[in-house]
Amino acid sequence: MATQTKPVLHGYFRSSCSWRVRIAFALKGIEYDQVPVNLIKDGGQQLTEPYKALNPMQQVPAVEIDGVTLSQSLAVIQYIDETRSGPRLLPADPKKRAQVRMISDMIASGIQPLQNLHVIQKIGAEKVQWSQYFINRGFQALEPILKQTAGKYCVGDEISMADICLVPQVFNAERFKVDVGQYPTIQRLNQTLLEIEAFKESHPSCQPDTPPDLRA
Amino acid sequence: MATQTKPVLHGYFRSSCSWRVRIAFALKGIEYDQVPVNLIKDGGQQLTEPYKALNPMQQVPAVEIDGVTLSQSLAVIQYIDETRSGPRLLPADPKKRAQVRMISDMIASGIQPLQNLHVIQKIGAEKVQWSQYFINRGFQALEPILKQTAGKYCVGDEISMADICLVPQVFNAERFKVDVGQYPTIQRLNQTLLEIEAFKESHPSCQPDTPPDLRA
Repeated sequence: MATQTKPVLHGYFRSSCSWRVRIAFALKGIEYDQVPVNLIKDGGQQLTEPYKALNPMQQVPAVEIDGVTLSQSLAVIQYIDETRSGPRLLPADPKKRAQVRMISDMIASGIQPLQNLHVIQKIGAEKVQWSQYFINRGFQALEPILKQTAGKYCVGDEISMADICLVPQVFNAERFKVDVGQYPTIQRLNQTLLEIEAFKESHPSCQPDTPPDLRA
Repeated sequence: MATQTKPVLHGYFRSSCSWRVRIAFALKGIEYDQVPVNLIKDGGQQLTEPYKALNPMQQVPAVEIDGVTLSQSLAVIQYIDETRSGPRLLPADPKKRAQVRMISDMIASGIQPLQNLHVIQKIGAEKVQWSQYFINRGFQALEPILKQTAGKYCVGDEISMADICLVPQVFNAERFKVDVGQYPTIQRLNQTLLEIEAFKESHPSCQPDTPPDLRA
């Protein structure tokens, strides 16, 4: 492992999917380099040919690691978990693993894709109501499930990929002025998780590409 | 395992996410019961209170298995893979596993959520163009990735979760009149996979709830 080079995260400070990967690296204690991809500037740097070669979906994040380039944050997180030491990001018990993946996918397939930048740009004038609708629909489903699965964290008392997905989604919800207080379990978990160093240091308010006026 | 009851799949013949789970059960040789949830009839049977108790997202599939209820098809498929014998649905090599998950999520998070029934009902009159746009965007990204990862199947020469996701997505693409011939690798993989018994017996054209006029 001595010759291994640091992973490179191509991401954007405010992208919730980039934040997921930053949390995973932080929880595992993995050093990595960040290459900012500004989704707004120059019409979107993710649309350039060099970036398209890294991630043909023209989305962030893309991660160069161990000689391969991976996109899709949950694939990256599980790869990190399966190849690096440090705290597990998925529980050992198969049923709990399934619950972690279910909650993660409720966010990663059920909510985030419907309120991401490219989609709401296509929605146009109705984009805030559209995003609020799909975030609320997802949170209304997450709340009763988390009520059953949660201990201190989303599934039991160990931090997992589900927590990694939850916190950035709550951040998005707040940006779209969703009243997260309607979802007491989600709110409680989010507040607990935001106290943890790995979630703090990876926060959109303190990344290399965070604009000065948005810094914490 | 002798006392184990058969898993129950709550699904819909034409739902691509239900089909994914049916393929996984078939590949593993697992017997299961199907409970049809008609997404059209009565305004959508997934919206009823009894179904909402099973899956608060009010989507199919939901699977009752080993005393738990799981939604989100990739969580279900990976649970089956981790708890049942039979052919692996994810490769043993961590990099190949990551590629399988990346391809699966490009479909399950990057394409399908944007063209599913509930979303296109909200889009209204533009729904066909909307769906074609997002399917083409996803396939334009999948094609160069699959060109690199594919052997006989999506990743190398073993059937995996990526194949389980690809075939139902191509089926959706054809329903929306996307010209799949633009994507030669996708088309070749789809044709190869459709020859396999597990993909045939799980096909939307031959399920218990397939209407007579849509039967193969």
